[in-house]
Amino acid sequence: MSMLDTVLIWISRNHKRWQGDLEKWLSIPSVSAQEAHAGDVREAAEWAEDYLRNIGLKVEIIATPRHPVILATTPAELAEPGAPEVLLYGHYDVQPPEPLDLWQSPPFKPTVRDGKLYARGANDDKGQVHAHLAAMLAWREINQKLPVRMTVLLEGEEEIGSPNLMAVVQAHAAQLRACKTLIISDGNQFAKGVPSIIYGLRGLVYAELTVTTANTDLHSGQFGGAVANPANALARIIAQLHDEQNRVTVPGFYTDVRPLTDTERAAWRQLPFDEAKFAGDLGVPAVTGEAGYSTLERLWGRPTLDVNGLTSGYQGPGAKTVLPCRASCKVSMRLVPDQAPAAIMAAFDAHVQSLAPAGTKVEVHWHGPGSPPALTAVTGPAIAAAQRAITTGYGIAPVLCREGGSIPVVTWFQQALGLEAVMIGFGLPDDRIHAPNEKIDLDGYFGGIRTAAALYEELGQALR
Amino acid sequence: MSMLDTVLIWISRNHKRWQGDLEKWLSIPSVSAQEAHAGDVREAAEWAEDYLRNIGLKVEIIATPRHPVILATTPAELAEPGAPEVLLYGHYDVQPPEPLDLWQSPPFKPTVRDGKLYARGANDDKGQVHAHLAAMLAWREINQKLPVRMTVLLEGEEEIGSPNLMAVVQAHAAQLRACKTLIISDGNQFAKGVPSIIYGLRGLVYAELTVTTANTDLHSGQFGGAVANPANALARIIAQLHDEQNRVTVPGFYTDVRPLTDTERAAWRQLPFDEAKFAGDLGVPAVTGEAGYSTLERLWGRPTLDVNGLTSGYQGPGAKTVLPCRASCKVSMRLVPDQAPAAIMAAFDAHVQSLAPAGTKVEVHWHGPGSPPALTAVTGPAIAAAQRAITTGYGIAPVLCREGGSIPVVTWFQQALGLEAVMIGFGLPDDRIHAPNEKIDLDGYFGGIRTAAALYEELGQALR
Repeated sequence: MSMLDTVLIWISRNHKRWQGDLEKWLSIPSVSAQEAHAGDVREAAEWAEDYLRNIGLKVEIIATPRHPVILATTPAELAEPGAPEVLLYGHYDVQPPEPLDLWQSPPFKPTVRDGKLYARGANDDKGQVHAHLAAMLAWREINQKLPVRMTVLLEGEEEIGSPNLMAVVQAHAAQLRACKTLIISDGNQFAKGVPSIIYGLRGLVYAELTVTTANTDLHSGQFGGAVANPANALARIIAQLHDEQNRVTVPGFYTDVRPLTDTERAAWRQLPFDEAKFAGDLGVPAVTGEAGYSTLERLWGRPTLDVNGLTSGYQGPGAKTVLPCRASCKVSMRLVPDQAPAAIMAAFDAHVQSLAPAGTKVEVHWHGPGSPPALTAVTGPAIAAAQRAITTGYGIAPVLCREGGSIPVVTWFQQALGLEAVMIGFGLPDDRIHAPNEKIDLDGYFGGIRTAAALYEELGQALR
Repeated sequence: MSMLDTVLIWISRNHKRWQGDLEKWLSIPSVSAQEAHAGDVREAAEWAEDYLRNIGLKVEIIATPRHPVILATTPAELAEPGAPEVLLYGHYDVQPPEPLDLWQSPPFKPTVRDGKLYARGANDDKGQVHAHLAAMLAWREINQKLPVRMTVLLEGEEEIGSPNLMAVVQAHAAQLRACKTLIISDGNQFAKGVPSIIYGLRGLVYAELTVTTANTDLHSGQFGGAVANPANALARIIAQLHDEQNRVTVPGFYTDVRPLTDTERAAWRQLPFDEAKFAGDLGVPAVTGEAGYSTLERLWGRPTLDVNGLTSGYQGPGAKTVLPCRASCKVSMRLVPDQAPAAIMAAFDAHVQSLAPAGTKVEVHWHGPGSPPALTAVTGPAIAAAQRAITTGYGIAPVLCREGGSIPVVTWFQQALGLEAVMIGFGLPDDRIHAPNEKIDLDGYFGGIRTAAALYEELGQALR
């Protein structure tokens, strides 16, 4: 029996322990977007610091203008001789839990129902980061030494666009460049029983669009019909952002989109994707989207423009006959290779101004600089090692997928450190990340711990 | 010197007293729409009860399923022999004060700036009702007897559509039918220095439109592009409710609209209306509205459709990449003669369903049964008496106007009791009713007390 086999058995015997540890971390409401939770974000960082120290790593909590970054390194004597250095990136902050009334159990009171652990962050990203921490702990307990020299970088601002991460990365660039690969577990398996390696991500830009008219809210009877209504005006602008084919109308939006290859489209058609079940699980009458593309193509290979929030006038109970003076929306655009955030932002700005109805003032504010889309090579020893590790961890070989979400740091690490990411996700597509009732499937989580343990062994061999 | 002259002098000598009394009433946050304020609504009713008792009236507080109605009558010995019975209608409830951060002084802490009294309800309707109460009190103090036998009916649910008023009116119909005319002061003068009598009102229907898609909020990266977005869908529906001429597209919407007569349009063109000042005061770059009509025609003689509130997704600070599963808006339509609320509601329901984008579910909920538009005759002894009273109270003869707002009870009283309303407003069009920084011009308020005092004398003679 190999040492890895012993580690895997040990992992299986300690499921309750891993889950209990994770539940403690999930109980800390580390919502990075809301200032009221700044202390909780700090507490979640300190929890991870303690956990990493307990594994034996040397840990530093690096202050930033907002939420701290954790940087942990493996002392030479705790790794096998000649073990390659490997960087693990993750985040310990979470999305806001609102709307709270739609949660079946409180978002920060982890609750198991039917083999799934429900809590904000259970999937994104505490659950997946913790699978790695548990795997490291298991290696240390069974073998004393790790098969790789792990550098662990955990940030507390991923859900607000990582405004301070790159300054920290740049300040530690020399040290981080010594790493031979980057591991990120911040995504999903293709489906339950279909583990995957992710080789492409969409990028993101996020705007707030505000329409103003009068200098105060007005009575809809006294003024209605003679003064522009910003809510109607905003609706008219939003409605003009798509055409009848559900294509985005911003001029130049598709200019830099790299067409999907026939090979890629053929490969995706082979994936076990059940569109009826997909729609049924979400409770939608039918899928919909850009004409001429399949659901997977729409999600992975085509850009989008979605309203993420609408705000205007009176939103309380009952009726208030107010003619609002302001209406706003939050709009996110998911980008695909080779769209550039700055070009899309400029095109959107100009287009929206051209749509401003008479009697209104339109302003666009961008939340952050945006993140570019990413595509990584699917050849090389690290990807091959990950394929073997997943086969060991989940008992089945992985498929190659893209993902519709964005992990901006993938591009940034590539640009700043020359490191390409190995992206293996332990979650499932129906885990409702960013939404009420986020969960992680416990089988997927335990399989993730096994996969991480095997990955360290495989990388320790492959990257020597 | 006539008794009225003495009363008017007495009113002028007691400005501080009237204002102080009004400020006490305005300090009670009688917000009928918000259950948390139910106790305050009750307190405002009791304040009025005490005030009316102090005048000498016999007062009853009539319970309803929600907020009480006050009914006060004048004992025979407190009115001049043979004095005609007259009904005064008003309301002591107010609109919600939100958004609070836009108020320069707290909405329920009455504050005088530059000759204007700022508070929620200062105009609508406590300030105007109190002008009548002060006039009654002055008559009682100077003359012991009132020139008319006043019946005062004050409700606490006007701002939520008067759901329980008509049951009370019907239960007291025999008593109320004895009244020879109905006085309502719940509107405005045409402008400062241009007092008016209002002979037309728009009606109102108020809908809540909800678009739902998936069974939960989703991650905009994981699902964006393949699932209908209810916020985008709602925007598309709203945008299609008007055409390029700003005409409402609901089929049949204009079928029953009575065209404005050339006489009426000519009379309105003579009114001292300064469109540039109107736009400048509101801070809008230009007026806008239905093509082919002037601003006054749009406000008084044409129906509208306005969004009063928009709600969807994440509305907090910063960015949340959520694909919402629900979006809703509040929509009010102002109606003109001879549009019928029920017909408009049915037409709107059908039209909105026809606009529902694929993959969405659209529902309409109506807040209340709506109120029909009203037009009253401008001839007859009561209107003539009001014209003389305004000339006495403000020192200038009134113009004849319509108003863009709705006072549903005007039609209801006409239908239930056969009483046509004499509508004389003491407010000004820039008083920001239903909006932050509502006010009443103190000159207009004191002129209103004088006008009310003179009106009772004139009606006492004219309706004998």
